[in-house]
Amino acid sequence: MKTLFTYNWTVREEWYRWCEDVPLEELLKVRTGGVGGILHTLFHIIDVEWSWIRVLKGEADFQESFEGYQSLEKVKELDELFKKEVKEFVLEWGSGFENKILQETRQDGSMETLLWGEVMRHVIAHEIHHIGQLSVWSREIGKQPVSANLIGKGLTTIET
Amino acid sequence: MKTLFTYNWTVREEWYRWCEDVPLEELLKVRTGGVGGILHTLFHIIDVEWSWIRVLKGEADFQESFEGYQSLEKVKELDELFKKEVKEFVLEWGSGFENKILQETRQDGSMETLLWGEVMRHVIAHEIHHIGQLSVWSREIGKQPVSANLIGKGLTTIET
Repeated sequence: MKTLFTYNWTVREEWYRWCEDVPLEELLKVRTGGVGGILHTLFHIIDVEWSWIRVLKGEADFQESFEGYQSLEKVKELDELFKKEVKEFVLEWGSGFENKILQETRQDGSMETLLWGEVMRHVIAHEIHHIGQLSVWSREIGKQPVSANLIGKGLTTIET
Repeated sequence: MKTLFTYNWTVREEWYRWCEDVPLEELLKVRTGGVGGILHTLFHIIDVEWSWIRVLKGEADFQESFEGYQSLEKVKELDELFKKEVKEFVLEWGSGFENKILQETRQDGSMETLLWGEVMRHVIAHEIHHIGQLSVWSREIGKQPVSANLIGKGLTTIET
């Protein structure tokens, strides 16, 4: 669990650095697929990661929209703010958390029973999927995307 | 580990079904980003997944190119052939495998030391990343992509 979260955080930092060389106009441009834009995608990843952790903790999640975060700096600040709490939760993760139950209410009002381990893997897959979208848009604007390789990133976390 | 592999296999099957309604010309069309096409991406995912498992087992990996697999049927047949061996390996996975060492020779001839757990997570992230690219191309041709949600797919594998 820790390796894949660390992978996602590392890749995300590399995308922030990638963004530094790209005009804000390109970062905000509405594109085809996903949530429809580069910076919007990074904002969405941060939002979803933090919100699910908050749901597992039984606390209020994030309700703001991308409209208030239209710059790389604002998105990075939000990430820093949320990351602290997410990191704490992930680093405390142990096998005892895997099968804890989360009762969620679906949008149609029905109930859904989820395992905590399932939610955590959903969060992991969610970021990687959206980063894949960034890689296409990156090529569309003629830039090399950040490498998605997990090996070779020095993620030597020993999993138990 | 098993949940994320099962997630990937489930999503891949859904993409095969998605492909059934799309003309072969669109599946083969060269596109911007990734390996440059929808069917080519699915072929690449299968290739990389099987090849890494073979490397861990110390056996020969896949060396064929996409040129010989230019139809949905051929790609699905290859998947079925490889999946058997991959599944067997994944289902036997236990914590004792996590920190086994793989010595790999890089393309420049230098040696790289990898943990088996790192390689397996690389394979997982590799597929999810490429599926993210498919989702953009799907919208480009006006079709709704397969859902990338991990929750709600009935992946109730209990991880230990």
